[in-house]
Amino acid sequence: MINNRVREILEQVRNGSISDREAVLRLRMEPFEDMGFAKVDHQRELRKGIGEVVYGSGKTPGQIAGIAGSMRDRGQDPVIITRLDPDAASFVGASFPLDYHETARMGIIGRMREPDGIGTVVVATGGTSDQPVAEEAALTAEALGNKVVRMYDVGVAGLHRLLSHMEDIMDASVIIAVAGMEGALASVIGGLADCPVIAVPTSIGYGASFSGLSALLSMLNSCASGVSVVNIDNGFGAGYMASMINHMGAGP
Amino acid sequence: MINNRVREILEQVRNGSISDREAVLRLRMEPFEDMGFAKVDHQRELRKGIGEVVYGSGKTPGQIAGIAGSMRDRGQDPVIITRLDPDAASFVGASFPLDYHETARMGIIGRMREPDGIGTVVVATGGTSDQPVAEEAALTAEALGNKVVRMYDVGVAGLHRLLSHMEDIMDASVIIAVAGMEGALASVIGGLADCPVIAVPTSIGYGASFSGLSALLSMLNSCASGVSVVNIDNGFGAGYMASMINHMGAGP
Amino acid sequence: MINNRVREILEQVRNGSISDREAVLRLRMEPFEDMGFAKVDHQRELRKGIGEVVYGSGKTPGQIAGIAGSMRDRGQDPVIITRLDPDAASFVGASFPLDYHETARMGIIGRMREPDGIGTVVVATGGTSDQPVAEEAALTAEALGNKVVRMYDVGVAGLHRLLSHMEDIMDASVIIAVAGMEGALASVIGGLADCPVIAVPTSIGYGASFSGLSALLSMLNSCASGVSVVNIDNGFGAGYMASMINHMGAGP
Amino acid sequence: MINNRVREILEQVRNGSISDREAVLRLRMEPFEDMGFAKVDHQRELRKGIGEVVYGSGKTPGQIAGIAGSMRDRGQDPVIITRLDPDAASFVGASFPLDYHETARMGIIGRMREPDGIGTVVVATGGTSDQPVAEEAALTAEALGNKVVRMYDVGVAGLHRLLSHMEDIMDASVIIAVAGMEGALASVIGGLADCPVIAVPTSIGYGASFSGLSALLSMLNSCASGVSVVNIDNGFGAGYMASMINHMGAGP
Amino acid sequence: MINNRVREILEQVRNGSISDREAVLRLRMEPFEDMGFAKVDHQRELRKGIGEVVYGSGKTPGQIAGIAGSMRDRGQDPVIITRLDPDAASFVGASFPLDYHETARMGIIGRMREPDGIGTVVVATGGTSDQPVAEEAALTAEALGNKVVRMYDVGVAGLHRLLSHMEDIMDASVIIAVAGMEGALASVIGGLADCPVIAVPTSIGYGASFSGLSALLSMLNSCASGVSVVNIDNGFGAGYMASMINHMGAGP
Amino acid sequence: MINNRVREILEQVRNGSISDREAVLRLRMEPFEDMGFAKVDHQRELRKGIGEVVYGSGKTPGQIAGIAGSMRDRGQDPVIITRLDPDAASFVGASFPLDYHETARMGIIGRMREPDGIGTVVVATGGTSDQPVAEEAALTAEALGNKVVRMYDVGVAGLHRLLSHMEDIMDASVIIAVAGMEGALASVIGGLADCPVIAVPTSIGYGASFSGLSALLSMLNSCASGVSVVNIDNGFGAGYMASMINHMGAGP
Amino acid sequence: MINNRVREILEQVRNGSISDREAVLRLRMEPFEDMGFAKVDHQRELRKGIGEVVYGSGKTPGQIAGIAGSMRDRGQDPVIITRLDPDAASFVGASFPLDYHETARMGIIGRMREPDGIGTVVVATGGTSDQPVAEEAALTAEALGNKVVRMYDVGVAGLHRLLSHMEDIMDASVIIAVAGMEGALASVIGGLADCPVIAVPTSIGYGASFSGLSALLSMLNSCASGVSVVNIDNGFGAGYMASMINHMGAGP
Amino acid sequence: MINNRVREILEQVRNGSISDREAVLRLRMEPFEDMGFAKVDHQRELRKGIGEVVYGSGKTPGQIAGIAGSMRDRGQDPVIITRLDPDAASFVGASFPLDYHETARMGIIGRMREPDGIGTVVVATGGTSDQPVAEEAALTAEALGNKVVRMYDVGVAGLHRLLSHMEDIMDASVIIAVAGMEGALASVIGGLADCPVIAVPTSIGYGASFSGLSALLSMLNSCASGVSVVNIDNGFGAGYMASMINHMGAGP
Repeated sequence: MINNRVREILEQVRNGSISDREAVLRLRMEPFEDMGFAKVDHQRELRKGIGEVVYGSGKTPGQIAGIAGSMRDRGQDPVIITRLDPDAASFVGASFPLDYHETARMGIIGRMREPDGIGTVVVATGGTSDQPVAEEAALTAEALGNKVVRMYDVGVAGLHRLLSHMEDIMDASVIIAVAGMEGALASVIGGLADCPVIAVPTSIGYGASFSGLSALLSMLNSCASGVSVVNIDNGFGAGYMASMINHMGAGP
Repeated sequence: MINNRVREILEQVRNGSISDREAVLRLRMEPFEDMGFAKVDHQRELRKGIGEVVYGSGKTPGQIAGIAGSMRDRGQDPVIITRLDPDAASFVGASFPLDYHETARMGIIGRMREPDGIGTVVVATGGTSDQPVAEEAALTAEALGNKVVRMYDVGVAGLHRLLSHMEDIMDASVIIAVAGMEGALASVIGGLADCPVIAVPTSIGYGASFSGLSALLSMLNSCASGVSVVNIDNGFGAGYMASMINHMGAGP
Repeated sequence: MINNRVREILEQVRNGSISDREAVLRLRMEPFEDMGFAKVDHQRELRKGIGEVVYGSGKTPGQIAGIAGSMRDRGQDPVIITRLDPDAASFVGASFPLDYHETARMGIIGRMREPDGIGTVVVATGGTSDQPVAEEAALTAEALGNKVVRMYDVGVAGLHRLLSHMEDIMDASVIIAVAGMEGALASVIGGLADCPVIAVPTSIGYGASFSGLSALLSMLNSCASGVSVVNIDNGFGAGYMASMINHMGAGP
Repeated sequence: MINNRVREILEQVRNGSISDREAVLRLRMEPFEDMGFAKVDHQRELRKGIGEVVYGSGKTPGQIAGIAGSMRDRGQDPVIITRLDPDAASFVGASFPLDYHETARMGIIGRMREPDGIGTVVVATGGTSDQPVAEEAALTAEALGNKVVRMYDVGVAGLHRLLSHMEDIMDASVIIAVAGMEGALASVIGGLADCPVIAVPTSIGYGASFSGLSALLSMLNSCASGVSVVNIDNGFGAGYMASMINHMGAGP
Repeated sequence: MINNRVREILEQVRNGSISDREAVLRLRMEPFEDMGFAKVDHQRELRKGIGEVVYGSGKTPGQIAGIAGSMRDRGQDPVIITRLDPDAASFVGASFPLDYHETARMGIIGRMREPDGIGTVVVATGGTSDQPVAEEAALTAEALGNKVVRMYDVGVAGLHRLLSHMEDIMDASVIIAVAGMEGALASVIGGLADCPVIAVPTSIGYGASFSGLSALLSMLNSCASGVSVVNIDNGFGAGYMASMINHMGAGP
Repeated sequence: MINNRVREILEQVRNGSISDREAVLRLRMEPFEDMGFAKVDHQRELRKGIGEVVYGSGKTPGQIAGIAGSMRDRGQDPVIITRLDPDAASFVGASFPLDYHETARMGIIGRMREPDGIGTVVVATGGTSDQPVAEEAALTAEALGNKVVRMYDVGVAGLHRLLSHMEDIMDASVIIAVAGMEGALASVIGGLADCPVIAVPTSIGYGASFSGLSALLSMLNSCASGVSVVNIDNGFGAGYMASMINHMGAGP
Repeated sequence: MINNRVREILEQVRNGSISDREAVLRLRMEPFEDMGFAKVDHQRELRKGIGEVVYGSGKTPGQIAGIAGSMRDRGQDPVIITRLDPDAASFVGASFPLDYHETARMGIIGRMREPDGIGTVVVATGGTSDQPVAEEAALTAEALGNKVVRMYDVGVAGLHRLLSHMEDIMDASVIIAVAGMEGALASVIGGLADCPVIAVPTSIGYGASFSGLSALLSMLNSCASGVSVVNIDNGFGAGYMASMINHMGAGP
Repeated sequence: MINNRVREILEQVRNGSISDREAVLRLRMEPFEDMGFAKVDHQRELRKGIGEVVYGSGKTPGQIAGIAGSMRDRGQDPVIITRLDPDAASFVGASFPLDYHETARMGIIGRMREPDGIGTVVVATGGTSDQPVAEEAALTAEALGNKVVRMYDVGVAGLHRLLSHMEDIMDASVIIAVAGMEGALASVIGGLADCPVIAVPTSIGYGASFSGLSALLSMLNSCASGVSVVNIDNGFGAGYMASMINHMGAGP
C-alpha cells in the first residue's frame, strides 16, 4: 500500500512543494484511466494477486477489446474475459492473440500461468449439462496457475461413478462441485473429502429447479463441514476462490 | 360402489315406493353421521382400504375423542390419530385403549395390523432431528400391516453410514427417505435402490432451509428415477403411500 | 452386487496376484465407458430394473446419438430418449430405428416391453394443454411394460367428466394425475381412488400459476391420502414411478 | 352525494355569506368525529349500504368500545366487530348488548337484519379446522340480512360428502368456499354451481401450505368460471361480498 | 338435474330392461362428444347459464375451429374464444362468422346477447397498457348480455380523472377494476362505490411488479369491503363473474 | 386549486344560471382531452411542477406521437418520453424536434430547463452495465433543471475508485446510487455523504440477483440513514425525486 | 475532512517526527472509543448533520445506556433511541433525562431541536394500526427540527377523509405516507401532492400482506412521480430522510 | 482408507477364514457405535482432520451429553458443541469440563488446539447484533488452531471504521465477514483484501431483510472476487472453512 507514489507525495509535503489540501487530494487519487465506459483498475493486480477480469456480458465487442487492450498495455498477463460470445470473440481475436474456449465462453489473452499451487483443484459436475459452468471454473483455475482434474458427470444418482474417483477426491487441495437440479453433489463430496469444497449451483434444470434456486438452497444447507457457495452459474468465482486457497502459504 | 343400499333404492324404484326425484336424492345420500364439527366418513375404509385418519392438530381433545369413538363404533380398527399432543393423548386415553407414541405424536387405538405386505418398508433419516417425522411414517406403516426397518441418522455428509446399510436398501420393497436441510438423502438412496422411494422433506434446519423449502425443492429435483415427494413433515402421508405400494398385488 | 467381477478380484487377492491396495482400487472401479461428454451407466439396468434414460435437453444431436449407440451396444432395449426435439429426432433417426412421438417429444429405439405389470396405469389430465406431459408419462409407462389407459381433459371444473370414468379409476393399479393451474385433479382423484396416485404439476397456465408453482403446492397439500408428487412437467418421472409400483411383487 | 349540507353551502355561496375559498374548503369537509385514534366514517353506511366494520385486531378494548359507541350514537345497527378476542369482548360487553361468537371471534351489537336477499348464501368448508373463518363469513352474511346454509367439512378428498349436498349447491344464490391446504374446494364447487362463488383461502395447514399461499394460488388459478377470491382468512370480506351480490336488484 | 334421460333410466329400472349395475353406470354417463383432444362439455350451458368458453392459448387453429364447430352444432350462441392470436383468428374466420377483437385477442362467433342485466358493468383501468385485459373483460360482459361502460386510464396517480366519473361509479351494478403496477385502483374504487368490485391485476409493469404479483397482493389486501380478485390478466373471468352478478335475480 | 374555472362555477351558482346538482357535477369535472387511448393530464404540470411524462413502453409510435403533440399544444416544454425504442423515436422524430438518447432510451422534445436547483445531483453506478438506468436518471434530472455529475463504474469491489470522488460526494445536493447485483453502493455512499441518497436497484446480474431483487432488498436494508429506494430500473423516478429535492426552497 | 488532526499529521511529516509508514497509518486512524460491544461514531454528527442513532433492538439496557452516555459525553444533543422497549426505557431513564414515547417505542435524551426546516412534514397513515410506525417517523422528524402535521387514519378506502386534508397536503414540504395492507396511500398522496413523498410500508395486516411485502411492492410500483420507499416499518428512516429534505438549502 | 481393518479382511479372504459374501459385507461395515438416537462418526476425525461437531439444537441435554461422552471416550479433543442453550450447558457441564461461551452459545470440552495455521483469521461484523454469529465463527476457528482477530461493528455505513483496520485486513490469511441487513460488508472487504473471504449472512434485521434473505442474496451477488458464502447464521461453518483454508499446506 505504501508504494512509491505515496512516498513521493509525502516527500512533496516535506519539501513544501504542495499544500496540505493538495496532499490529501493526491493521497486519495488513483491511477485510473478513464475510458468513458469503464474505469480500468490497474492497481487491482497488485492488491488481489491477479488483475481485474473482463465480464463480457452486456458489453459491446468494442468495449471489451478496449478494456483488454488497456489491461495489456499495463502489463497484465493473462487477460481473462468471461461470458464472451463467439461473435465478440472473433472481434477481440482480430486484435489480440486470443485463446477462445467455446463451451466455457471464455477468452484468454496471453500465457497461462504455470501451475504453482499447493496441490490439484478438482472440478466435479453432477451432469453433462453443467459442463459450461464447470469449464469456466476449470479454465479460470488453470489460467491462475493451478493443476486441474476434471471429474464430469458424477452425479449422486449414480453414486459409484463418484466413488470410483475416491483417489482424486482424497488427493485434492480444493474441490469445486458444480451441480444443478438438487445440488446434492456438494454435500456428498463435502462428506467424503477433507479439503475445502466450493459449491457452484447451476441454472440447469426445469420446473421446481427455479433457475438454480433449488441447487443454491441445497448447497447452502449442506450438512457437510467445509462447504461454501458462490452465485448460480458463477464458475469464474469458484475457480478464482479455489486458486486463492490452493496458493495459501504457497510462497513468494 | 353398488352396495346393498343402492340396490335397495333401485328396488324401491322398481316397486314404486319412492318417486324418481326421491330416488335420485337418495342415490346421492351417504351414510354420514353428523357430529356438528365433522362428518366422519365411514365409507372411506371400504373405498381406500383403511379408514379415515384423525388429524389431531387444531381439534379439541373432546372433538378428537368424539371422532375416534364414532369410528370405533363403526368397527374401524385400528384408529390412527396424528399430530396428537400429550395433553390430548391423556384425554383420549381416558376413554380408549390408546397406545401413544410421544416422539411421533401419534396415538393408535386398537390392534396393529399384522405385517402382510410384499416386503419391508425402510424408513431412513438424514439426521437425529428428523426422527419425529420418521417415526410418524414408520408407525403409520406398521399400523397398516408393514414390516418396517428403521435406518436413522444416515445423512449424506457421512456416506459410509448409509452404505453400511446397503443390504437393507437392496432388500427393501419401498424406502421412505426423511431429511431436512439439503435433502440430498432422497437422491442418493434413489440412485442406490431399485424400489420406489417416497421422499419426505422436514422443516428441520435454520437459515436458508426456509422451514423445509430447501429440502422440498431438492427432493423434487432429484435426478434419480423412482422418487416422489410428499408435503413437508408429512410422515403419515409417506407411511400411507408406502403401505399402499407394499400391498400392491399382495392379496386376494 | 456380488457379481463375477468382485469374486474375480477376491480370487486374485486369494491367489496373491494383486496387492491389497490394488484390490481395494479395483473393488471401487466400475465398467464405465468414458465418451468425453458423459459417463454412460451400464450397470444401471441391472440395479434399477431398467437402463438409464437419455435426457435430450441441452445435449447436441451428436451427443444423444453417441449415448444411445453406446447403450444399444451394451444390449439395452428399449433406449428411451426424453425432451427430444424434432430436429434431433431426425438426426438420431438416421442411425437408429427410432419411434418418435412428437407430442411427448420422446423417442424410443427398439421394442416396447410387453405389458407385464399387475394392472393398468391410468393417466389423467386436467386440460387439453397438459397432454404433452401426460403423453411423456404414458409412453414411458408403456415402454416399461405397462398397460396404459388415457383419460384426458377431465378437469375438476367439469366434475361429471371425471365421474363418468369411475370404472377405470376404481380398476387402476396406479393413477398418474397431470394438471396445471390449480392442480385440484390430484386431490379429487386421490379421494376417489384406492390406489397410489402420482401427481404431476404442469407449467401450463398464466398469471398466478407462476409456471407450475400453484399446481405443485396444491398437489403437495392434497388432503387425500396416497398421493405423492414429482417435479413440474416431469412426465417421465411419473411414468417410471408408476411402472415400478405396477410391477411390485409382479414376479421374477 | 348532493345532500343537505352541500345544498346549504351552495346556498351560502348564493347569499354571499361565505367566500369562494371558504366554499371550496367546506365542500371538501366531511362530518368526521375525531376521536384521536381513528376517524369514524359515519357517511359510509349511506354510501356502502352498511356502516364501517370494526377490525378489532391491534386495537385496545377501550379503542374498540369507543369506536363502537360512536357508531351506535350515530344510529348504526348492527355494529359488527371482527377479530375480537374474548377479553376484549368482555370489556365491550360490559357497555353494550354484545352478542359474542367465540369460534368466529366476532361480536355483534344490536339486531341482526332480517333475511331480505334474493336467495341463500351457502358457506362450505374443506375441513373442520376452516370453521372459524367460515363462521366469520356466515355471521357477517347473517348480520347483513342473508339466509345462510352451512355446509362444513365437505373437502374434495371425500367428494361424495360434497355431492350429497348437490341440492343446496344448485339452489344457492352465492356460495362461499372456505378451504386451506390445496384449496381445491373452490374449483370443484365452481364447476358444479351456476352461481357466483367467493373463494376464501385459509392459513390452515402445514409445510408447503405456506400459511395459505398454496390455497390462495390454487383458488386464483381455478379453471371454473364464476370464482373470485378474497384475502387469506378474510371471512368477513367474503360474507360482505356475498351479501352485496345476494341483494343485487333486491329492492328499493 | 333430473332430466328426461335420468327418468328414462329409472323407467328402465322399473320395467326391468336394465340391470342394477347397468343403471348405476348409465346414471353416471354424460353426453360427451370425444374429439380426441378435448371433451366438449355440452351440458355446461345448461348448468352454468352459458356454454363453455374456448381458451385459445396452446391450441392449434384446427383444434380451436373443431371445438367451436362442435359447440355451434349443439346450438351454443355465441361461441366465445379467448387468447386467440390473429393467425388463428384468420383460420377460424374462414369457416365461421367470426367477430375478432384484436386488442382483447377475443373472437366471438354468433350474435351478442341483448343487454338484460340489472344495470351497467363499469370496466375501469389504471393505465393505457391495461387495455387488452380490460377489453377482454368488457367484451365478455357484453357478449353475455350486459351494458358496459368503459372508464380507461383513470389510475390513482391522477385521482381527479377517476373522481370526474363519480356519476358512473355510483350508478354501476358491478365494477371491474383492471390495474397493474401498484393495483391501488381497486381499493380506491372499492371505497367509493357501493356495488361489488371485481379486481383484475395485470402483468403490466416492470421491476418489482414481478409480472403482476405486486398488483395481485395489493388487491387481495384491499381495505375496502366488497372487493374480490381474479387471476392476473384474467379479463374473461372478471367479465363472466360481473355478468353473473349483474343478472342476479334478473328474472327468467 | 381554486382556479378561475371554480370561481366561474361558484359565480354561476351565485347568479343562479346553474342548478345545485349541475354545480357539483361541474366542480368535479376536469379539463381532460379524451384521445380514445389515454387521458392526458394537463393540470398535472401545475400541480406537480412538471407535466406528465410519457412512458413509451407498450404504446405504439402513433400513440406516443399523439400524446406528445397534445402536450406540446398545451404548452408543456420539455416533453419527456421514457422507454422509447429507436424505431418509435424515428417515428416521433419525424413530427417533432426530438433529442433522442439511445443508451437511456429517452427522447426529449423541446428545450432543457436551465439548472436552477440548489446544488448538483450526483449519479453514481456500480458497474458499466448499470449505465442505461443511470442515464435515464441523469437526463431526467438535467431536463428538469439540475446540474448533474456522472460518477460511473465506482462499485464497492474497488472502493478506492469511489473514494477518489470524495469531493463530489461531499459537495452533492442529492446522490442517485444506481447498482445491480449486491447493491452495496447505496449503503457505502449513504454512509459517506451527508445529503439524501436515492437508490435505484437495476436488473443487471445473473443467478441469485433474481432480476434485481437482490439489489432491491439490499438497498431497502441499508444501515445508512438518509437512503430511500425506487423501483428496479426506475431511473426516471430517481431523477424526478432528486430534482424535487434539489429544488426544495430554491425559488419564489 | 481536512481537520486539524490531518494538518497535525502532515506537520509531523514535514518536521520529520514520524515516518512515512506511520503517517499513512495515522491518516487512516479515527477517534473511536472502543466500548467492547460497539464503536460509537462521534464523527458522524459532523459528517451527517446529526449524531448516530441508537437502534435499541437486540441490545441490553446496559449496552444502550453505555452508548447513550458516551454520545452525551461527546456533546450529542439530543440522543435518539429507537426500538426501545419499556423495560429498557426504565433502565436508561434512571441515568438520563429520558423522554419516552411508548407508542413509537422511542426515547429521546435532551432537548428537541427547534423547528428550522423549510416547511412542514406531514405524516399520514392508512389505518389506526399503522400509528406506532408513524409516530417513530413523526418524533424523529420533530427531534431533528421539523414542524410535523399528523394525519392519521386517512386510508384510501375512505377517500374523502384524505381529501378533507387537501390543504395540509398542498402545503407540505415533505409527506411521509405510512401504510400496511395494500399500501395504496402512497400512490394516492403522490398523485395529489407536489412535494416529495417518502413511503413507509408497515407489517400490519394478515394473510397475503405477507408481513409488509404487499405494501412494499405496491409502494415501489407507485405510478405517481416523486415517491421513494424505505424498509418495512422503518419509521425512523423516513423521518430522517424527510428532515434532510426539509432542511435542503435551509441554512447558513 | 486402506487401514488395518481392511487389510485384516483381505487377509481373511486370503486365508479362507471368511467367504466372499462375508468379505464384501465386512468391507462395507464401519465401526459405528449405535446409541439409539445417533450414530457417532468416529472415523470422521481421521477423514476430515477434526471430529464431528455436536449440533445441540433439537437434542435433549441427555442426548448431547451422551454423544459428547462417546466422542471423548474415543479420544476426540476438543469436543465442540454448537447451538447449546444455557440449561443444556449446565447439564453437560455437570459431567464434563465444559467451557461455555454464552454469546456464541457454544460449549467446548477439552483443550483448544494451539494456533498452527498459516496466518490469522479475521472475523468482522457489520453491527453489534451480529456478534453471536461472529463469536461462533471465531471460537470455532480458535478451537481448531487458528489465531483470530475480532473486528466487530465495522459496517459499511461508517466506512472509516473499517478502513482504520486496513492493516489487519491486509495481513489476514482468511477473513470471515458476518453481516445482516444489506450484507454489503462482504463485498467491501472482498474488494479490499487479497485473501479468501467467507461471508456469513445473519438473520439480524427486520422488514425486508426477510430473516437473512437480503444479506444472503447480497453476498452471493458480490462483485468482488474471492468471496464465498455459507448458510444464514452459520458461524460454525465459516469458522471451520476458514480453519481449513488457514491450514492449507501448513503441515508436515
